[in-house]
Amino acid sequence: MLNLDNFKEIADNYQVFFFDAFGVLKNAHGLIPNIVDTFSYIRQQQKQFYILTNDASRSPQQLAESYWRLGLHDVTADSIISSGMLAREYLQLKVKQGTAVYLGTEDSAHYIETADLRTLSISDVDLDNTADINALVLLDDEGFDWNNDLNKAVNLLRRRTIPVIVANTDNTYPTSKTQVAIAIGGVADMLENIVGKQFIRFGKPDAQLFMFAYERVVAQNPAIGKKDIVMVGDTLRTDISGGNKFGLDTVLVLTGNIPAEDAEIRIRSTGIIPTYVCESAVIPV
Amino acid sequence: MLNLDNFKEIADNYQVFFFDAFGVLKNAHGLIPNIVDTFSYIRQQQKQFYILTNDASRSPQQLAESYWRLGLHDVTADSIISSGMLAREYLQLKVKQGTAVYLGTEDSAHYIETADLRTLSISDVDLDNTADINALVLLDDEGFDWNNDLNKAVNLLRRRTIPVIVANTDNTYPTSKTQVAIAIGGVADMLENIVGKQFIRFGKPDAQLFMFAYERVVAQNPAIGKKDIVMVGDTLRTDISGGNKFGLDTVLVLTGNIPAEDAEIRIRSTGIIPTYVCESAVIPV
Amino acid sequence: MLNLDNFKEIADNYQVFFFDAFGVLKNAHGLIPNIVDTFSYIRQQQKQFYILTNDASRSPQQLAESYWRLGLHDVTADSIISSGMLAREYLQLKVKQGTAVYLGTEDSAHYIETADLRTLSISDVDLDNTADINALVLLDDEGFDWNNDLNKAVNLLRRRTIPVIVANTDNTYPTSKTQVAIAIGGVADMLENIVGKQFIRFGKPDAQLFMFAYERVVAQNPAIGKKDIVMVGDTLRTDISGGNKFGLDTVLVLTGNIPAEDAEIRIRSTGIIPTYVCESAVIPV
Amino acid sequence: MLNLDNFKEIADNYQVFFFDAFGVLKNAHGLIPNIVDTFSYIRQQQKQFYILTNDASRSPQQLAESYWRLGLHDVTADSIISSGMLAREYLQLKVKQGTAVYLGTEDSAHYIETADLRTLSISDVDLDNTADINALVLLDDEGFDWNNDLNKAVNLLRRRTIPVIVANTDNTYPTSKTQVAIAIGGVADMLENIVGKQFIRFGKPDAQLFMFAYERVVAQNPAIGKKDIVMVGDTLRTDISGGNKFGLDTVLVLTGNIPAEDAEIRIRSTGIIPTYVCESAVIPV
Repeated sequence: MLNLDNFKEIADNYQVFFFDAFGVLKNAHGLIPNIVDTFSYIRQQQKQFYILTNDASRSPQQLAESYWRLGLHDVTADSIISSGMLAREYLQLKVKQGTAVYLGTEDSAHYIETADLRTLSISDVDLDNTADINALVLLDDEGFDWNNDLNKAVNLLRRRTIPVIVANTDNTYPTSKTQVAIAIGGVADMLENIVGKQFIRFGKPDAQLFMFAYERVVAQNPAIGKKDIVMVGDTLRTDISGGNKFGLDTVLVLTGNIPAEDAEIRIRSTGIIPTYVCESAVIPV
Repeated sequence: MLNLDNFKEIADNYQVFFFDAFGVLKNAHGLIPNIVDTFSYIRQQQKQFYILTNDASRSPQQLAESYWRLGLHDVTADSIISSGMLAREYLQLKVKQGTAVYLGTEDSAHYIETADLRTLSISDVDLDNTADINALVLLDDEGFDWNNDLNKAVNLLRRRTIPVIVANTDNTYPTSKTQVAIAIGGVADMLENIVGKQFIRFGKPDAQLFMFAYERVVAQNPAIGKKDIVMVGDTLRTDISGGNKFGLDTVLVLTGNIPAEDAEIRIRSTGIIPTYVCESAVIPV
Repeated sequence: MLNLDNFKEIADNYQVFFFDAFGVLKNAHGLIPNIVDTFSYIRQQQKQFYILTNDASRSPQQLAESYWRLGLHDVTADSIISSGMLAREYLQLKVKQGTAVYLGTEDSAHYIETADLRTLSISDVDLDNTADINALVLLDDEGFDWNNDLNKAVNLLRRRTIPVIVANTDNTYPTSKTQVAIAIGGVADMLENIVGKQFIRFGKPDAQLFMFAYERVVAQNPAIGKKDIVMVGDTLRTDISGGNKFGLDTVLVLTGNIPAEDAEIRIRSTGIIPTYVCESAVIPV
Repeated sequence: MLNLDNFKEIADNYQVFFFDAFGVLKNAHGLIPNIVDTFSYIRQQQKQFYILTNDASRSPQQLAESYWRLGLHDVTADSIISSGMLAREYLQLKVKQGTAVYLGTEDSAHYIETADLRTLSISDVDLDNTADINALVLLDDEGFDWNNDLNKAVNLLRRRTIPVIVANTDNTYPTSKTQVAIAIGGVADMLENIVGKQFIRFGKPDAQLFMFAYERVVAQNPAIGKKDIVMVGDTLRTDISGGNKFGLDTVLVLTGNIPAEDAEIRIRSTGIIPTYVCESAVIPV
């Protein structure tokens, strides 16, 4: 069995914390018990944190409100970096005009509302009238009819050569203690495979989400370097793999995807090696 | 541009014909013009043919009736070999008892009705009561609710270690001259990727469909060998690849997936090399 | 921990045994202790067996001699079915004339020597003189210079659109108790990925190797059906997956790839489910 | 046929140029004719450029010298960003001490020589003495024995759970007008597949190479944004895909991988869409 590290001792060596959300701060039952103490400690120490999430189903404002309702008041919209924000940056820089069709709820469409781009749900697309469509954006697994609208997306991509942006790289997400649902990232893999075209994915483990957060850190305090930041997550394939590759030290916590007894074998079999392994991200008061 | 071979001259060199259905005998508009003449010729020559199809949405009887209604009267249920028949053979040999859950229409469930196995639509599965479920069979893309029931299939496979049988290896199928729909084979890839378990696939290019037809041929006439059979199809990845690997000569026809001007580049880029390329499988009277 | 089944009790229910070789009959130290007793028992019972192997590095005659030298005298060349034999059948049916270039030793080239085909080692290929080359066959990881000759193979396949046959689907093979070597199957994946063309693979888990053995069984005794045959192997991905799909009952033995303590988790995580799990294939006298 | 854009007109709209090397500035015969004029123009306009290359076989200094010898004197070591530089940054941030084993020439090992890390060629590794080895770095396809040393790399990774860094994501590189060689990126795919562990890849299309160059641009001139930079390359999968995703406008030039007559079909079939397509990156004087 793996020796576990003490999260407080680790935390004292870093200036900035990047946290994954699900499995680190909350789970299907609500907040991880006593996780609010960690944020009190970070506040007392006058250190910085960001939450890096592949959840593009709700805006940072909505996500922050949900933490508030659960009792975690330190998380503000400003401290949340979502893969949806990269989708928006891409559209602003690269698509600019016309219509962006999306798969997702109206809430998720928030991410792609920019000054000069019209947004349109896949459900409202008329396949005989696609000349104005300049991008397809996959945001959330809800808000459309899977059978009809996934077929419509395939036919749209056979007709138009346009960029397809995926704002979530997860395959599934938990819906209860024992059940999961297919995430839009899993649906995106199917569509990409079927149409045979390369999609553009944003979200952990991709470097661009880390870079987006890193630029905010440096803008606030130019003295901070990668060695001062630690990424804390419960998933090897996204949090730890992405953090490592970006050059950050990483902490695997065992409050989410990986039970304590599986940690060592998972690390050995995947070759994705966290700098530290801790029981949780809780810093007791 | 590729030199095209004359299908009648080729046909005269073989005793048995294996035909793909869609793109060879019929398309979104009905029968390929004059394809009935090919079957008259085969009948006159007292040669044999089989139709090898990845379509497990309807029974051979139903498929034969649909050819009859289109005006092709030579095709009987006995001459149709469907991937669904391999799914049934698998269940008979390997699962034997309990419940087989299926994704598909009631028509498609015909394939898995065996003496000792109860069949149950995924829509009717209760996830709290799965102890009797011994197999999951993917038959058709219709007959269930994609969002609810695909999530249910994922959760079933997280709970139970059971074989998953896929009776269709196609990603899409045409629904009109310009549109396609996602086939259950495409959905199967997504589910397999998400649950991380190996599914069991039947259908071209897999050798077992060819073997199933070959055994029927030999049962009727033990003098026939692989060199006497030619596989005729419109798709490199399934018909030609599978026929080649099984040791048959193969004919690519240009009445389906591949336009004449693309044939050469497709063959070169995939490395899947038909023995012959013909405009169509029509033998003019 | 998994309950283990008794191999002798299982054996008494079947008429024909298909055995994998490495990890079932022998390992890096020689024969599995007492495995000769199993073959005495099969002989006494007047039952049949075949050895199904992905090893195309030596002829069935050479393989049988190596068993003889180790003390297992029941294994004759006739009872060995190698993936190399399928490569030969393919060339006989589909290539017929010209030159077949091979990667492998001279011993392995035995498999592709047919009446009308010239064989040529990749080392002897002149890239300016390739018009006569009609196939490339990957047989063994030895007998050529990896750097020079793999580059040569890539350039040959850029120049000529020819079938590529892989007579071994394994990625690695053991060379000592603790070390492995890359098998030609692993090299084939790299070449296929680089040239982007589809190769033709023979060997477990592919149905054609099972079919080849099955046809021999039925030729000897037409009363035997798939339900009378059991496949015994140490590898889920090849022996068990292939046997299951072909419709055979399967036995996973723990004398090879999978330690006893890992069997249950491997079965659950891969979804490849043997009918039985036994400590070994030994039947004590 | 695609309408081609005029490179000079495009160039006038950007402040900074990111160039791919092979297929844009040079090919198997030497410099692309008149490409020196482009650099004269950039110099006259007092604009900036960087060369982004997946070539980690030689140091920036050596690469700059090779351009000088070919007659292109504007390219200095400072203007070359190689994937090898990201490998070094990773080792500095994440590995820090012990031994880094490399596959490649001594020249390529330059990239991983840092203050506190010992470097060791794979050829010199003793598998019985690996406790000090903390990383494996794949730099170049030369400088080691493929058969012996690739097997040694596999066995090292079975023994030690260490990060594997790949400083080149290409599968092949041209060695003459008609021939290619397998690049270390192609070898890396094989090793990763065989050991089943995740490797860490640096190089286009990965965002980190673009970020590395972008940070240099901004350090020199903080007023420059992504919209002021254009990526010029000949390969959709690396240059154009990576540039697009990073948020840059992109130019596909037809002096390398893609012949003019294939450009449109390649763009449509891959879904990787350059902002512009130009005959070459030459700006005539």
